[in-house]
Amino acid sequence: MKVMILGIDGYIGWPLALREIEKGNEVSGIDNFFTRRRVREVNSDSVIPISTMQKRISAVREKTGARINFYRGDVANPSVVIDAVKKEKPDVVVHLAEQRSAPYSMIGLKQATQTMVKNIVSTLNLIYAIKDVVPHAHILKLGTMGEYGTPNIDIPEGFFEVQYNGRKDYLPFPKQAGSWYHWTKVHDSNNLMFANRVWRLGITDVMQGVVYGTRTTDINRTGLRTRFDIDEVWGTALNRFCAQAVAGLPITPYGKGGQTRGFLSLEDSISCLDLSISKPPAEGEYRVFNQFDEHYSVMQLAQMVKEVFEHDTGKEAVIRNVPNPRVEAEEHYYNPEHKKLAEMGYRHSRELKDEISIMLEDLAAHRPRIEALSDVISPHTAWKSSGIN
Amino acid sequence: MKVMILGIDGYIGWPLALREIEKGNEVSGIDNFFTRRRVREVNSDSVIPISTMQKRISAVREKTGARINFYRGDVANPSVVIDAVKKEKPDVVVHLAEQRSAPYSMIGLKQATQTMVKNIVSTLNLIYAIKDVVPHAHILKLGTMGEYGTPNIDIPEGFFEVQYNGRKDYLPFPKQAGSWYHWTKVHDSNNLMFANRVWRLGITDVMQGVVYGTRTTDINRTGLRTRFDIDEVWGTALNRFCAQAVAGLPITPYGKGGQTRGFLSLEDSISCLDLSISKPPAEGEYRVFNQFDEHYSVMQLAQMVKEVFEHDTGKEAVIRNVPNPRVEAEEHYYNPEHKKLAEMGYRHSRELKDEISIMLEDLAAHRPRIEALSDVISPHTAWKSSGIN
Repeated sequence: MKVMILGIDGYIGWPLALREIEKGNEVSGIDNFFTRRRVREVNSDSVIPISTMQKRISAVREKTGARINFYRGDVANPSVVIDAVKKEKPDVVVHLAEQRSAPYSMIGLKQATQTMVKNIVSTLNLIYAIKDVVPHAHILKLGTMGEYGTPNIDIPEGFFEVQYNGRKDYLPFPKQAGSWYHWTKVHDSNNLMFANRVWRLGITDVMQGVVYGTRTTDINRTGLRTRFDIDEVWGTALNRFCAQAVAGLPITPYGKGGQTRGFLSLEDSISCLDLSISKPPAEGEYRVFNQFDEHYSVMQLAQMVKEVFEHDTGKEAVIRNVPNPRVEAEEHYYNPEHKKLAEMGYRHSRELKDEISIMLEDLAAHRPRIEALSDVISPHTAWKSSGIN
Repeated sequence: MKVMILGIDGYIGWPLALREIEKGNEVSGIDNFFTRRRVREVNSDSVIPISTMQKRISAVREKTGARINFYRGDVANPSVVIDAVKKEKPDVVVHLAEQRSAPYSMIGLKQATQTMVKNIVSTLNLIYAIKDVVPHAHILKLGTMGEYGTPNIDIPEGFFEVQYNGRKDYLPFPKQAGSWYHWTKVHDSNNLMFANRVWRLGITDVMQGVVYGTRTTDINRTGLRTRFDIDEVWGTALNRFCAQAVAGLPITPYGKGGQTRGFLSLEDSISCLDLSISKPPAEGEYRVFNQFDEHYSVMQLAQMVKEVFEHDTGKEAVIRNVPNPRVEAEEHYYNPEHKKLAEMGYRHSRELKDEISIMLEDLAAHRPRIEALSDVISPHTAWKSSGIN
């Protein structure tokens, strides 16, 4: 199978490429190194050192014999996507190439606009490239569980039966995202649903939980690492908590820490995406998967990192709740459904505590790099103060 | 009150300016004449001749003594909106300055992208300009009933109570728009709802039905006309049907003509917007109005135009259903609620048949202009064939 990965240089893109090569698929990819550049702009860096794309591709060639056809370019530029799709004629395109930081999108109008435009335009470009060049190819698009927000009812996988004034319909679940970034994912989902309706494109729209971890089986086998961000703009809760524990910094949940989200390990994220690739949607199907293993409150995760760290090292870790820079419910009902991937054969492979233990060990080897970033870990980007400058 | 109108040169923008001047409000406006230019690009023109903005402003000054502060610029350029808002310090900004044609958005990737980007970015610019400069000002944003699509249940005004798996929440109604243009309005609504949540901006989001007509009381009083489009890209169903009847062309509903939509006259549209201006939302309120009078199927409208035309002129009019260039249900349930404006005091002032009679008379005076456009009235822009070129 020919698998094209938009955002192949990223946290998920790179280990997905390694997995698809291991599966014997032909892998190509596009990236413009947006994340590398923007992470440096906030004086941060991947805590796990990563090679250049050129070196990554050479290393893959050496270790596996596989070639990766790489295209350097911005997927918000239509000709970049269209030309690559024309050349590769992929069976599936996995779209991971969007600006992925909620805080970045909330810095101010400029970043809000850039996030909105780049993310939406990249998906439009992909829709038209697939429609006109390889109309039977599968679009596998990364969304986020954050599209749903935290409604006071169960969250279905994309669609649900609605009763209103005595009549019924099967409708998309109403979305209530919590940042401009999260809204771009909602807008993308809506645009994909429409593209499916007009042109019957086969689409998988993945509502993914928060991904954590430093390792996958393919990373372990090849030794080719993926990036790992811990700063307030580009890092995510659990990854950041582990880094804080390792560096002897307080673990800092935002606000009360009752915010509850779905989480899954990097290994399981890659397995879910790979399963979606190997079992594509039916002709003309638009399917939505909620992709996560368990839901935890941010406070539960902080406590778990503290426990595992203290157990593994014998040292003490401190939790310090800090003012929440976001506008979000800090105590709420949360019960999203996630059956579809399990029905297709997905099995959760990693226990959260074991994964935290591995992360802590991996990060301990880079403690000086984490300490050098201690200024950019604490939250500075506040939703309320996002402005025109 | 200081009223700023984005898109003051348009079909609705101009008569709204006349109304607000008549009400004694101070009126300012922004426009970049996008619609004038794009209409000419499809070899079309407003059937009712309209003056340049300069002449419009001079005529208003002569007839009413009022000054309109006009800013020529693109509202997708942040400094255009921010500078005008800083200068005017408006109490309300009415946002009518978006690309408003569904067929235009479906021509191909370039037009889809332009519609998506310009519409979304203009609303983001307005959100930030209001937030940072006049945070208590009212944003009155024009959306469309087309955001809801045609679900098989009643359509509430924006929000409804949802029961699912034994629990309840009050949620935004799921949207299912039918073109890239209509989706931009959904994305705008979502972005406005979020802006209200984070910054408590006071917002009215108007889900407006299809507007028809050539006249308002203010147009009659001042003699200052508004544009009237009839081509397949920029015209809307009822306006186009009237022009076809006048020119002796067949009236052409798309497909079976069972597509049902909410409609209202230009006079009533202006009255609803004026009512929303004079009764702004509460501090921190995001309110959604469904703004239309009656819903009709396209076939009912075609028959009504035929009847009125034959009654008024004694000549025959022919209805000819043509293949539907759109992807839409041609027979469906349709029952949207529209109580909120009525509860605020709005009363329907025009009867559809009377309004059709006036339109036919107005258009008869420009029969040669309509005949010159006969090539651009028939549908060419097909949803299915929208492509990368």
